[in-house]
Amino acid sequence: MVSCALKRALVRSSSCCGVWSRLLQRPSRGCVSSSLHVFDRDEIRQKLRAFPGGSVDLLKQDSGVAVLTINNPSRMNAFSGSMMVDLEERVTQLEKWADGKGLIVQGADETFCSGSDLNAVRAISNPQDGRKMCMFMQDALTRLLRLPLVSVALVEGKALGGGAELTTACDFRLMTPGSVIQFVHKHMGLVPGWGGAARLVRIVGSQNALKLLGGAVKVDPELGAHMGLADGVMEGSQGAGGTGTPLQRAEDWLGRYVEGPAPVIRAVKKVVLSGRELPLSEALRTEKDVFGTVWGAPANLQALASKSKHK
Amino acid sequence: MVSCALKRALVRSSSCCGVWSRLLQRPSRGCVSSSLHVFDRDEIRQKLRAFPGGSVDLLKQDSGVAVLTINNPSRMNAFSGSMMVDLEERVTQLEKWADGKGLIVQGADETFCSGSDLNAVRAISNPQDGRKMCMFMQDALTRLLRLPLVSVALVEGKALGGGAELTTACDFRLMTPGSVIQFVHKHMGLVPGWGGAARLVRIVGSQNALKLLGGAVKVDPELGAHMGLADGVMEGSQGAGGTGTPLQRAEDWLGRYVEGPAPVIRAVKKVVLSGRELPLSEALRTEKDVFGTVWGAPANLQALASKSKHK
Amino acid sequence: MVSCALKRALVRSSSCCGVWSRLLQRPSRGCVSSSLHVFDRDEIRQKLRAFPGGSVDLLKQDSGVAVLTINNPSRMNAFSGSMMVDLEERVTQLEKWADGKGLIVQGADETFCSGSDLNAVRAISNPQDGRKMCMFMQDALTRLLRLPLVSVALVEGKALGGGAELTTACDFRLMTPGSVIQFVHKHMGLVPGWGGAARLVRIVGSQNALKLLGGAVKVDPELGAHMGLADGVMEGSQGAGGTGTPLQRAEDWLGRYVEGPAPVIRAVKKVVLSGRELPLSEALRTEKDVFGTVWGAPANLQALASKSKHK
Repeated sequence: MVSCALKRALVRSSSCCGVWSRLLQRPSRGCVSSSLHVFDRDEIRQKLRAFPGGSVDLLKQDSGVAVLTINNPSRMNAFSGSMMVDLEERVTQLEKWADGKGLIVQGADETFCSGSDLNAVRAISNPQDGRKMCMFMQDALTRLLRLPLVSVALVEGKALGGGAELTTACDFRLMTPGSVIQFVHKHMGLVPGWGGAARLVRIVGSQNALKLLGGAVKVDPELGAHMGLADGVMEGSQGAGGTGTPLQRAEDWLGRYVEGPAPVIRAVKKVVLSGRELPLSEALRTEKDVFGTVWGAPANLQALASKSKHK
Repeated sequence: MVSCALKRALVRSSSCCGVWSRLLQRPSRGCVSSSLHVFDRDEIRQKLRAFPGGSVDLLKQDSGVAVLTINNPSRMNAFSGSMMVDLEERVTQLEKWADGKGLIVQGADETFCSGSDLNAVRAISNPQDGRKMCMFMQDALTRLLRLPLVSVALVEGKALGGGAELTTACDFRLMTPGSVIQFVHKHMGLVPGWGGAARLVRIVGSQNALKLLGGAVKVDPELGAHMGLADGVMEGSQGAGGTGTPLQRAEDWLGRYVEGPAPVIRAVKKVVLSGRELPLSEALRTEKDVFGTVWGAPANLQALASKSKHK
Repeated sequence: MVSCALKRALVRSSSCCGVWSRLLQRPSRGCVSSSLHVFDRDEIRQKLRAFPGGSVDLLKQDSGVAVLTINNPSRMNAFSGSMMVDLEERVTQLEKWADGKGLIVQGADETFCSGSDLNAVRAISNPQDGRKMCMFMQDALTRLLRLPLVSVALVEGKALGGGAELTTACDFRLMTPGSVIQFVHKHMGLVPGWGGAARLVRIVGSQNALKLLGGAVKVDPELGAHMGLADGVMEGSQGAGGTGTPLQRAEDWLGRYVEGPAPVIRAVKKVVLSGRELPLSEALRTEKDVFGTVWGAPANLQALASKSKHK
């Protein structure tokens, strides 16, 4: 009874379901992305909603790039319980957005996110509820990472604890000058539980991950670029030659990689995602199937016709 | 009925079959490299041969280093259908070459390869045939990557589309000044389908792979070296201090890493290959078995005897 | 009947067994770390003890950092048979050390380790005994790598052959000026057999691993830092501004990453370890379970209380 979250995610969001349905029906041999957790989502949602405050806002743009904003500025955008439920609902909306190509995740009011709200945390500080909250957030963030969108975390101000974990659920991280990513979990007697450790190891390698978690190291843009945690540094808008807000600059940065028809860009993310998560043989099979969804499709036929004319 | 392509490949090419035969007979638990595709090779070969032109040439040298040349210069060495069949036959020959240690893959006439021939492509632009061609090329290139030879793609001129994918089927990539590797698939409304995406992620990481595919970025030698896609830059032969053709320089470069008895060099490739493709536990088991093929073998006994004399 | 060495190791050393016991009882689906080898340890121990000489010494310190010393200076700290048995016993002691946080592995007398003692090697140079010795050392070194301690190989002088392999069984490698790590196996007609190849690929990537093994390349601190094999270079104690022995400096270096309560540091190592060895889905599940062991535990509650007071 193993279902495969990765493949399910790709089916959900694919306008061309044939391939993924077949994948889904195949025996799960070799599937490393079986369902993360079997748990009662509704029960957890109800518990989390008991701790309200703030919101997670989604803006889907005609450009095919959406902006997701973590919005709780009075608490440095810390996650209340209801914001965790919000986040999961926004991810579900993005999974259904067939025209999407890109996603920018940011915090409100020029800071990123400071993790989970301590008031909610205290109320559920028994191991059982803590694990359930983890399952819920791991599920939401894994689905975020697996969206067929090229995603960027735009880090202004501080990304602390769970906020640092959130940055690792995007394909890329852009930092503004003065910003900091810090896995402060150790100072709270904790380790990441939203999947941030597993994802961090994949981004910066296990040695850097041990340093960042074991030392609760402050990562500024320079160290981030050096370790591979930051994929770019956005100059401030005040500086000479600076144009636009950090968000506009992040959209420019992302624009280069999402230009073109949505089915093609989504296919690019899918083959890279399967290359990142699956053993080589499985990744090759998936690549062949994704290739089959664009081969002979409109964008491909148009390009072929255009090449003929030029000859 | 899972057979393991990786292990089969190693058995095929091993002069010391005992270990690999036993591996083959073990239950496939934990084997991540099960047979890529079940398909009728002969049917595909026949279809591909209907699109002739060019050739793929193999030169096996006494040095233990072979040179494989993609040869269709009037079309920038694009792959016709018959060249795909050629390629697979050359890989089969290399699998049987017990004395081999190294391989250089190059294009004819100072350019690498521009992917597949658009005429053949148009004729098979229905999804079903496209997927079959993918399966055939994935199989050939995966077997190329898994040869017990240290392999180098020597990139002169342009490696475009499928040509860029071909470079990722070698252990190393050397670029000459002015050369370019570019995954142009997006411009054709496509993504890689010959396994290039899955392999690219393993070479440069998923962030760089997303950039290269999503942006169809031109990779020159400098960017290639920065990203880890190029393992070296071969200076031109005209330059001061330059000696030899790019091929001779590539052979010199490779020479350092294939010096010594063939069984030892082949064993080096095998332990690195299993370290690259298998989960740690499986890789350790394979390493122990490969170790068993050289431990107490002639080269080892001779080295031990020589150490005794020097004491 | 697959048991999982990784999970067993974590159970063994965990003071909070609940989670790991449950993990152990779960069906092994997706477990990539099944038991390395089924073999008669006692038989091998007896064979190895027939080749005495030297020792492997363990010093557990109140700081939570232990020092493991490879001690056979008359043979450049080469492993005799009895030292291999010693090593495995020391690892067992460390697995039981509930207060441990860090480990430094060093060689006696200002050099690291020159692999296995050629006299022992000659006596067991038949393939069957060679493979058994491999199984024994792979098992010991894999358990060393999986200890819930942040581990550092302090390389002074030379780490050759099996000594180079030993360095890869630690999380980090620090080199002193003038030191060398060299996989000299090729010169002995060999490849690594103690798991050094599989681990090396994970540390420096497969291209660098092919170079280091195929070329028996001498890695000095500069090259080591460039390739990612060295995580730091310890300046000599004689130099200006130098303070302390290399061991004291290594303890200082490590100190930053192991400061804090043992259960938290051990949990850090565990989530990074599972991130390094397991497919993403399995790693996420493990992270959630490790998180459950620190969430609501004394260090966490104390931090929460302290945060309240400061408000």
